[in-house]
Amino acid sequence: MILPIFLIFSLLTSTSNAAVQDFCVADLTGPDTPTGFVCKKPAAVTVDDFVFSGLGAGGNTSNIIKAAVTPAFADKFAGVNGLGISMARLDLAVGGVVPMHTHPGGSEVLIVVSGSICAGFISSDNKVYFKSLKKGDIMVFPRGLLHFQINAGGTSALAFVSFSSERPGLQILDFALFANDLPSEIIEKTTFLDDAQVKKLKGVLGGTG
Amino acid sequence: MILPIFLIFSLLTSTSNAAVQDFCVADLTGPDTPTGFVCKKPAAVTVDDFVFSGLGAGGNTSNIIKAAVTPAFADKFAGVNGLGISMARLDLAVGGVVPMHTHPGGSEVLIVVSGSICAGFISSDNKVYFKSLKKGDIMVFPRGLLHFQINAGGTSALAFVSFSSERPGLQILDFALFANDLPSEIIEKTTFLDDAQVKKLKGVLGGTG
Amino acid sequence: MILPIFLIFSLLTSTSNAAVQDFCVADLTGPDTPTGFVCKKPAAVTVDDFVFSGLGAGGNTSNIIKAAVTPAFADKFAGVNGLGISMARLDLAVGGVVPMHTHPGGSEVLIVVSGSICAGFISSDNKVYFKSLKKGDIMVFPRGLLHFQINAGGTSALAFVSFSSERPGLQILDFALFANDLPSEIIEKTTFLDDAQVKKLKGVLGGTG
Amino acid sequence: MILPIFLIFSLLTSTSNAAVQDFCVADLTGPDTPTGFVCKKPAAVTVDDFVFSGLGAGGNTSNIIKAAVTPAFADKFAGVNGLGISMARLDLAVGGVVPMHTHPGGSEVLIVVSGSICAGFISSDNKVYFKSLKKGDIMVFPRGLLHFQINAGGTSALAFVSFSSERPGLQILDFALFANDLPSEIIEKTTFLDDAQVKKLKGVLGGTG
Amino acid sequence: MILPIFLIFSLLTSTSNAAVQDFCVADLTGPDTPTGFVCKKPAAVTVDDFVFSGLGAGGNTSNIIKAAVTPAFADKFAGVNGLGISMARLDLAVGGVVPMHTHPGGSEVLIVVSGSICAGFISSDNKVYFKSLKKGDIMVFPRGLLHFQINAGGTSALAFVSFSSERPGLQILDFALFANDLPSEIIEKTTFLDDAQVKKLKGVLGGTG
Amino acid sequence: MILPIFLIFSLLTSTSNAAVQDFCVADLTGPDTPTGFVCKKPAAVTVDDFVFSGLGAGGNTSNIIKAAVTPAFADKFAGVNGLGISMARLDLAVGGVVPMHTHPGGSEVLIVVSGSICAGFISSDNKVYFKSLKKGDIMVFPRGLLHFQINAGGTSALAFVSFSSERPGLQILDFALFANDLPSEIIEKTTFLDDAQVKKLKGVLGGTG
Repeated sequence: MILPIFLIFSLLTSTSNAAVQDFCVADLTGPDTPTGFVCKKPAAVTVDDFVFSGLGAGGNTSNIIKAAVTPAFADKFAGVNGLGISMARLDLAVGGVVPMHTHPGGSEVLIVVSGSICAGFISSDNKVYFKSLKKGDIMVFPRGLLHFQINAGGTSALAFVSFSSERPGLQILDFALFANDLPSEIIEKTTFLDDAQVKKLKGVLGGTG
Repeated sequence: MILPIFLIFSLLTSTSNAAVQDFCVADLTGPDTPTGFVCKKPAAVTVDDFVFSGLGAGGNTSNIIKAAVTPAFADKFAGVNGLGISMARLDLAVGGVVPMHTHPGGSEVLIVVSGSICAGFISSDNKVYFKSLKKGDIMVFPRGLLHFQINAGGTSALAFVSFSSERPGLQILDFALFANDLPSEIIEKTTFLDDAQVKKLKGVLGGTG
Repeated sequence: MILPIFLIFSLLTSTSNAAVQDFCVADLTGPDTPTGFVCKKPAAVTVDDFVFSGLGAGGNTSNIIKAAVTPAFADKFAGVNGLGISMARLDLAVGGVVPMHTHPGGSEVLIVVSGSICAGFISSDNKVYFKSLKKGDIMVFPRGLLHFQINAGGTSALAFVSFSSERPGLQILDFALFANDLPSEIIEKTTFLDDAQVKKLKGVLGGTG
Repeated sequence: MILPIFLIFSLLTSTSNAAVQDFCVADLTGPDTPTGFVCKKPAAVTVDDFVFSGLGAGGNTSNIIKAAVTPAFADKFAGVNGLGISMARLDLAVGGVVPMHTHPGGSEVLIVVSGSICAGFISSDNKVYFKSLKKGDIMVFPRGLLHFQINAGGTSALAFVSFSSERPGLQILDFALFANDLPSEIIEKTTFLDDAQVKKLKGVLGGTG
Repeated sequence: MILPIFLIFSLLTSTSNAAVQDFCVADLTGPDTPTGFVCKKPAAVTVDDFVFSGLGAGGNTSNIIKAAVTPAFADKFAGVNGLGISMARLDLAVGGVVPMHTHPGGSEVLIVVSGSICAGFISSDNKVYFKSLKKGDIMVFPRGLLHFQINAGGTSALAFVSFSSERPGLQILDFALFANDLPSEIIEKTTFLDDAQVKKLKGVLGGTG
Repeated sequence: MILPIFLIFSLLTSTSNAAVQDFCVADLTGPDTPTGFVCKKPAAVTVDDFVFSGLGAGGNTSNIIKAAVTPAFADKFAGVNGLGISMARLDLAVGGVVPMHTHPGGSEVLIVVSGSICAGFISSDNKVYFKSLKKGDIMVFPRGLLHFQINAGGTSALAFVSFSSERPGLQILDFALFANDLPSEIIEKTTFLDDAQVKKLKGVLGGTG
């Protein structure tokens, strides 16, 4: 059975690039929209748009939190634009901590690849869900809720996290409160924190006001 | 405990504006998309994009319906673009009426701030749900259904309405039928209205045909 | 032109309640689902399911924050279930504050009905957007971001807020951190707060650990 | 190459019915939810759940509108539940009319299979889009907008319509206004129609009040 | 009752084109986004954007599969852009076959207009659902699942299919496997097909490698 | 500043479990819905609902494909229900292959934790995107497209994959075609495969017909 190619391909004539939209690789030079970046022209897309090597090495954990978060969101990993998924790498040196934070735009699943991590989140009705995770354990953190990760062992820990959004956002509580020019008086009124505490952390994190 | 700032901030390097998308303030000079206007550059966004003062004063109710609807949709209130919410102000003089209409793109919640309003909607199976609302009452009108509001008291009434869309649309029945060039014959065939009635309202509302 | 009723109605035979779904009034006795409560039987639905009077009076502001938030979410206001919208009333006595909080499930629009309110939010890249709002001003707070409201005047203030979800959630920062059994050590590690500060607020808010 | 079956199938062990959700055939005996009926147990699903023969014959057009609409929504065609698509059949005898109506829950595409149909819709800004369609033409009616279809030829016409929802709803203008107990006074105030016109149509369509 | 036009129209002042978004006709010259093409300027939209005549005639079935698929997706039928619906025409000569394929982006409903079609799909748990459909029968194929259509009678068959997406995509199994440069070795390893079979079909379909 | 607890807590009275919906842990004993399982009662939810240890050990790769896929979808990992995310573990012995397959319900991101994997997908317009991935590389596979993974090195490989759905589905091409009772004649007509090839694989995979 030999199929005449020229005939078969007439079937496909109408299936141009514009007719389908399997993906929408981010074109960072174009405008942004409420649902993601505009798309790179299909003809310019290559397999490298769908592969990202930036999570192969850990971030620098020689900092005060002894931790590093390396994201692969749509601005770095253009292929996930519009697909509702992204990743990040989490390196925790001994004593390392990913401070209390939220992702306003997506839920997160974490898998421990090495070491041990104490992870938890707090729900809207103020219940705390936390547990010490060992290698191979996974934990889900529902969208928008405060959560944290702490190295719970005597060795460095490595985890990968995935998000239900290609740009989930990351609001780190201390940076949101103390690393900008939000007046101390407003912070104190809205958090009940003492003035000395607020000013101390503003000093540390570079905030003013 | 003094945190070395220069180290902490290395954590944030990868969290550029493009990596997150907390909001997408409408850039009305750019193209529109199926899910909203393209976004203003983050660096140009200010708090004024998220604040709108246009609902502070009522619209002019010296018209035949003795009512005014003042919207704060994404074209006026750029900060709501992509966020799935918007508002409008409703002023009803004594005897005022917001005529039968639909919002094709969203559900509506109304709160009576002063006066008394008789509001109602009609479901797909032709049941009528209407009630006289007093100050502080709220009522929801499900997406796409015909509904109306009438001043039910002896004083002017004020209400604010919110929508589950930043551009819910507004199709006022009489304007849709009588304020354009839809031929009278088609209107009559599709509404069962008498020719005289159609022509009378076309005359009043500026329709032709 | 007299239309024979018995014939016209044959057109409608197939449009039963099950064929359409204009709304899905919450049946709180049934199971919950990822997208809302199961629906009350259509035959049992009345206009009162779509009207709520619980925002007519302010909550008690004789408390430490001199403020009260009175929600009309789907559990109280069954008619909004599945419609992607809900409301709440905000009463702020002189000096009143709605502490720093997030709504994990929706964006919020606030309208000042009386008095003056200083409101603001913090974005994922730690910029602060805040402004003093006067009567009639509206402000939008994008989904999931930390925000606050403070009475900015010498009289009590009243505002109504609407959400792009029928159950937007409410995570008040201080309650999430200090009003449960999250161990002080974990709080301190993940927030950089001093031990004395944490224990003081745990004491005040009833937290343990 | 002979694959040992017993080994290959171990790969599939974890892919139970509950692990996937290709479809959710409507179980009309269970509760309804904001996103569709609960699902029939997978083991009870057969090919007949995905096939519907009810559009094979036209509805009775011996009525005043000389037209019949036969829907295949999720309540009749259980297989489309949750899939965001459904269909209906449209029979128009000579002179037949599908009166002005909306589908609150979905957009519609119509294809003319025989005869000729004048179809149109009105947008939120009151522009009219209508055209005479011949056999093979398709037309789209955006969600929630008033639209109509009229037999434009000297023979009966047949069309099939598809919707972007498995339960798009159907609100026929005249039935919504005149086939229930909405008081004439309210109708007149909110539609500008004359009292005589309202009462005449209420009489015809079985309305009261 | 004569309504002063100039007053009534003041009500509409704020309802500009930008305030509503009933539709978003595709502007194929502009950028694509994750949710569809950017919109044509409203002023340039005409009824012809919502009407498409390209399904009036069948495609050429003088090919090896004796079948033709003629799509009306958003690139051809600009009016459906963003509306979540589209159509295609299916012509099957005697012996005609639409080969095994998937639509990654949407569910499909098929209606048989003439002839008889054997249609089926395979679920994730490898169950087969297929049936011989006669004129007037409709069948739904859930999103993303392998399915096929075969002329089951002695005459040509005609069907129209609708999709729950304006660009559902179309991945024809044989073309995906054999009509490109995917190395034979990879195909054989991932499909268990024999080398001779793979090379034969690559030859027929123009594949290399 | 000592806050009177009894007063503060009055603020929270109205924030019951039903008022918020941070998550919806799957109750597998209840009905399924188009958007996920019904929710476990909030009072019965514990941290263990959000943690899953089933990916800690690899599946058995002593099978013909020398590979094992171990999923953590909503039926096993109840906490992800409704959150739009899930995971799976991928073990590839030397020579191991995850055969050509699709996930009808979600996009996938893969991260190589050890070893080397050749992974690829085919788009709707039949282009092939494949690459050899080393430890730390991530690759995204857009929703619904055929894709595969092959151990590309001389040691076993381990990868974790995440999905943009809590129940993405898994349709393995060979099992869909050959592991059921789909008649050989239909397979041959719709895939162009030779009868001998079809029967050989049906034999291997346990198919009939």
